[in-house]
Amino acid sequence: MYFIGVDLGGTAIKIGLIAEEGRIICKLERSTPVSEGFEAVVGTINLMISDIIEKTKIDRSDIKAIGAGVPGACSEDGLMYSAINLSWENVEFAKRLKELTNIDVYIENDATVAALGEVEFGAAKGKRNVVMLTLGTGVGGGIVINNQIFSGSNGMGSELGHMIIGENYYDCNCGNNGCLETFASATAIIKYTQKLLEEDEKNSLIRDKVEGNYKKIDAKLVFECAKLGDELALKSVKRFVKYLSIGIGNIFNIFDPDIVLLGGGVSKAVDYIMESLIKETYMHITFDYDIRDRIAVAKLENNAGILGSAMYARTRTV
Amino acid sequence: MYFIGVDLGGTAIKIGLIAEEGRIICKLERSTPVSEGFEAVVGTINLMISDIIEKTKIDRSDIKAIGAGVPGACSEDGLMYSAINLSWENVEFAKRLKELTNIDVYIENDATVAALGEVEFGAAKGKRNVVMLTLGTGVGGGIVINNQIFSGSNGMGSELGHMIIGENYYDCNCGNNGCLETFASATAIIKYTQKLLEEDEKNSLIRDKVEGNYKKIDAKLVFECAKLGDELALKSVKRFVKYLSIGIGNIFNIFDPDIVLLGGGVSKAVDYIMESLIKETYMHITFDYDIRDRIAVAKLENNAGILGSAMYARTRTV
Repeated sequence: MYFIGVDLGGTAIKIGLIAEEGRIICKLERSTPVSEGFEAVVGTINLMISDIIEKTKIDRSDIKAIGAGVPGACSEDGLMYSAINLSWENVEFAKRLKELTNIDVYIENDATVAALGEVEFGAAKGKRNVVMLTLGTGVGGGIVINNQIFSGSNGMGSELGHMIIGENYYDCNCGNNGCLETFASATAIIKYTQKLLEEDEKNSLIRDKVEGNYKKIDAKLVFECAKLGDELALKSVKRFVKYLSIGIGNIFNIFDPDIVLLGGGVSKAVDYIMESLIKETYMHITFDYDIRDRIAVAKLENNAGILGSAMYARTRTV
Repeated sequence: MYFIGVDLGGTAIKIGLIAEEGRIICKLERSTPVSEGFEAVVGTINLMISDIIEKTKIDRSDIKAIGAGVPGACSEDGLMYSAINLSWENVEFAKRLKELTNIDVYIENDATVAALGEVEFGAAKGKRNVVMLTLGTGVGGGIVINNQIFSGSNGMGSELGHMIIGENYYDCNCGNNGCLETFASATAIIKYTQKLLEEDEKNSLIRDKVEGNYKKIDAKLVFECAKLGDELALKSVKRFVKYLSIGIGNIFNIFDPDIVLLGGGVSKAVDYIMESLIKETYMHITFDYDIRDRIAVAKLENNAGILGSAMYARTRTV
């Protein structure tokens, strides 16, 4: 028996055919035709599934279910309430994909299924209580409690990126001020670095590297320049660590999880700052306990979405 | 079959004999002999249990278990890691009380058992996912997920009062700055009101009522004066609402619970501010959904502790 895992993002759609025990048999990737709208996106997913079936020569009836990790909040029965990056609101995603594929479809938030993937096969293997932060353009949250994913009574929970943790100089896309996302995402690092460059006339490696075009700055460049000792980059990284440690501290005080996982593009830079991140997080936890081995970088990287969503479909069809 | 519920606080010990279905048969209350130390406190609880058995003429062997709600973090097997108000650290509370009473003892954090009590008999009856904030001298947190209490992998979680939500002008007892507790507890209201009075030379009802002795100010007085239109009191209440709504907004974004309950002494004033609290919380939730009937004041008041801890003992002995 097989499962299809769908990782639906604002930029790309990834699809994997996954064996019941979690082996990736085949995977495909295409750009998400966001501007063409809902039908085009669901149609693309359907075509990709047909492609994968043809390519692997498996029988459609051997696919037990499709799991999809989606960039937004959704109900247990497959309604997507809201996905800002796709400009979707209240679309019957699971229902429509089932109509097209004739296979049962189960959907969940992308960070939530990524957390499940990490529990099954990655950095949180065998752990019972896990909280994952995906540090990318925004900050997503995935929660596993007692081996089960948790996204609240209506699928609107686990929005850890919109936990308000302080005051910031710019507002979040959600309309609030001080969300974790505005301090600890790639966007936050870029914005703050641009702000420092605009305020500060001193030399910075970053200014040289982008030849004065601040729009070219990305989070990777900031971390690279910080590693090279650039003062301005170090200031930006320090601020990122300060607020991420507050976010992680809050997670420990609220969930006391076995492990906090950091995923998403920015997490690739975390090894470099892990020591200071742990040190600052210690300052924020209420009780005196060891967290040294309880903060880790996620392992599955690009496969987290397809593996996690396939495993989510498996939990729903047991 | 009966259960004993123990509500162990820094000021008073309350004990109830509770029938299996939750009826309070008899209750007793005594001051907590904090200064006399651990043995004196456990000894007092033992004596109170003997008193209640004698008074009600039930058979000791008909008491299935003792449940205790304790002011701090504890392990599943009854070790109290830390209780600041009792000056206890790492005490084998459950073990010692069992030795004295010869009855099985199960302990949990006081706000956590209060939440369980509210789910069983109070304002959250029949709800599956519930988060409770106890607004008193500090701010405690209780979490019920899928009908089960949740306090993390080691009993160190559910410390919602120590969630950092902003920057404050004074530090929390826990050593951090910006904990919800420093904005939304009775202590926070008192401190901020005192600060305003010290800074502001204008007349205030509060100044008159305490005859200039700011040490006499309590949260109740501040709410009373706000109701009478006193500007300074209104400013203090407004700040309380602002930050409490951020805390509750974070709880919705993280847990999407069926209901958020407000308990503790300060919650008695919440009816007066409920409209503005709901209005401000709406501003902080990420998705657009109805929370009007999902914020409520706890119902069990003084009985929450004994009922909740007895019901906790019941869940542990099923």
